[in-house]
Amino acid sequence: MDLETINKKLEKKLKPERYRHTQGVMYTAASMAMRYGYDIQEALTAGLLHDCGKFGTPKEQARLCKKYGITLSDAEMEVLPLIHAKLGAYLAKAEYEVENERILNAILYHTTGRPDMTMLEKIVYLADYIEPGRKMIPGLSEIRTLAFTDIDQAVCLCAKNTLAYLKWQARPVDTMTAKTYEFYSNK
Amino acid sequence: MDLETINKKLEKKLKPERYRHTQGVMYTAASMAMRYGYDIQEALTAGLLHDCGKFGTPKEQARLCKKYGITLSDAEMEVLPLIHAKLGAYLAKAEYEVENERILNAILYHTTGRPDMTMLEKIVYLADYIEPGRKMIPGLSEIRTLAFTDIDQAVCLCAKNTLAYLKWQARPVDTMTAKTYEFYSNK
Repeated sequence: MDLETINKKLEKKLKPERYRHTQGVMYTAASMAMRYGYDIQEALTAGLLHDCGKFGTPKEQARLCKKYGITLSDAEMEVLPLIHAKLGAYLAKAEYEVENERILNAILYHTTGRPDMTMLEKIVYLADYIEPGRKMIPGLSEIRTLAFTDIDQAVCLCAKNTLAYLKWQARPVDTMTAKTYEFYSNK
Repeated sequence: MDLETINKKLEKKLKPERYRHTQGVMYTAASMAMRYGYDIQEALTAGLLHDCGKFGTPKEQARLCKKYGITLSDAEMEVLPLIHAKLGAYLAKAEYEVENERILNAILYHTTGRPDMTMLEKIVYLADYIEPGRKMIPGLSEIRTLAFTDIDQAVCLCAKNTLAYLKWQARPVDTMTAKTYEFYSNK
């Protein structure tokens, strides 16, 4: 399926503000690909599809996971915003015909990151956090600059910020974000 | 006029492929603004509007310039693709309510560049050349990386490439592009 077809399908499926965010992530990912000499088409595709599982409520997403036979751990069921990434990676393959494992993994890990990410995983993880439609929050300007100058340091600060935010909101912290931070803070 | 309103107006006015290019330039400009700590909203607005004068044929653009009292030099009339930039800077103010002189100048100089450009002028000049929808041409990958690592060097190569392209196509070379190249090759 070409980018144009995927784009039109997503525009119908996602809420307008989610679709706009998706455009921001797609193009920001492309710019990061330019900066780091990565394949621009892969970055555009992964950015465009990163939230293709983010529609309906997390409970509806969990129901769809069950329907499609996608296993969710107890930990994943506790941190509801993580479910859409797992559903998204499944749908990217099943509904948008993406076979490229690098793209599927970039969708799968875009919310939590993981230790020792591929370049595309880092690009989508950061593009999601920094795209121009995001509201200004403490540390965002620094992460935006670092995303184009020192990508590992940007990932480290992004994971650190996410952990601090979850703590501040008294929301459950997922293990993977903590592992991402640990890995990149020791790098 | 907010970005959303400008966006909707442009979507109606421009051809679909020109509108898509405009989206690419808008977001690429925003990424460069992140990289260089420049105001992201200004970059988005200038990128979105950079081709707002590019509709109809160059002759129709020249007619509109006459109608609006925009002076075109003999040299500008000889290099037709330059007219839309002059018309665009006028329309950005008259039809899209942009008063910010930095944005208006970034639109005015986006095709030719000029010596000693402002940061926003460099950003829009380069974003127009490198946005992800552009077909691959010799030197583009290098300019794309340089746009995020050494912006003056990227401007220099971009002007050099443009001059070589015009020579190869046996098309008239505008004086300003030559001056841009001279300035940035001596920097």
